[in-house]
Amino acid sequence: MKLFGYWRSSAAYRVRIALHLKDIDCQAVPVHLVRNGGEQHSEAYTALNPTHLVPTLIDETVDGNLVLSQSMAILDYLDNKYPQPALYPESLYAKAQVQALALDIACEVHPVTNLRVQQYLVNTLGVEDEDKLSWSHHWMSVGFTAFEETLQKVSGKYCYGDHVTIADLCLVPQVYNANRFKVDMSAFPLINAIVERCNQLPAFIKALPENQDDAIL
Amino acid sequence: MKLFGYWRSSAAYRVRIALHLKDIDCQAVPVHLVRNGGEQHSEAYTALNPTHLVPTLIDETVDGNLVLSQSMAILDYLDNKYPQPALYPESLYAKAQVQALALDIACEVHPVTNLRVQQYLVNTLGVEDEDKLSWSHHWMSVGFTAFEETLQKVSGKYCYGDHVTIADLCLVPQVYNANRFKVDMSAFPLINAIVERCNQLPAFIKALPENQDDAIL
Repeated sequence: MKLFGYWRSSAAYRVRIALHLKDIDCQAVPVHLVRNGGEQHSEAYTALNPTHLVPTLIDETVDGNLVLSQSMAILDYLDNKYPQPALYPESLYAKAQVQALALDIACEVHPVTNLRVQQYLVNTLGVEDEDKLSWSHHWMSVGFTAFEETLQKVSGKYCYGDHVTIADLCLVPQVYNANRFKVDMSAFPLINAIVERCNQLPAFIKALPENQDDAIL
Repeated sequence: MKLFGYWRSSAAYRVRIALHLKDIDCQAVPVHLVRNGGEQHSEAYTALNPTHLVPTLIDETVDGNLVLSQSMAILDYLDNKYPQPALYPESLYAKAQVQALALDIACEVHPVTNLRVQQYLVNTLGVEDEDKLSWSHHWMSVGFTAFEETLQKVSGKYCYGDHVTIADLCLVPQVYNANRFKVDMSAFPLINAIVERCNQLPAFIKALPENQDDAIL
């Protein structure tokens, strides 16, 4: 397997955690999102992934090679192909709740604060740097506020009970991003405690942006 | 079952199509997204769904009632509980590709052009109406361009081969929205043909915004 990603992309970061949790052998192929106007826009990359977004997974064990985009689809694919440890609880009810939590980050927070959205705000709408920062802070705070409220009902050691699920795989990279952008996280004690607990696990440590070969520190 | 939604919400529209495809009995509970400052912000609604977003599904057949948010989690829940007709193809490979297509809309287009994002652009950033419209046009065009390119490889009568999948359930409401906002759709012949074909099916017709009880025409 090959994962085309970028050390700071939180969508790629989610997938890296799953690969390490499941101990799947996978070669990282860096796609630098800023250098040369963004390598995700190159002809070679868009032939693989026409959305110009990372990550892309290539599974060469599949006949004709599977080329797959969208981190949440990649996570489900990996979870179906390598079921242990599972990214979801077993019951239909619990599974749906965990998926909803994961999507609260993957749909509502991440895409709205993504690099290309920030670039459009500045380059096309002429938004000032300060307002661009407030934009990211706003959507992250809105997202975390709802997330924290749900955690009060369903969390244990991790987002949903006492096992790591796909919800933790989405939360941790988003909080990493939030800290990088200096979002005030003081109103989210459950989120902070869960992220701290996750970040003590080997799979989460190995997946950290600064531990990737393409990290620029 | 009860579905809290809004006639024009494309996330609710996706779920309505699935309910009709699978012939699931479900009561519609309207949440007016604009009236009274937005009924999705009411105390009664946010107690059910702290994200202040529609839709929310309540499944009263589950012990203690299942309260579920996030349309993509709701769709998978319904598909697991009522497997026929299936929203995904069977093979792992094809399933992942269909999921990625659906998420190309559900993650990359819809949240970025959502009502609350438009409200923030105008009310907080002071963006002019014309720029707000260009914003929506831009993200829809970017999303449809990638989608059309993928369809060239995988589409048949519908987005993926000759059966309706979750990708069609995401595409049709997004195109409905695009037409409402007068996005130029001339560069997307495959998308247009598939949407036209879907819109001849009873489930898609019943789910149309203008066919809902809370529609204001």
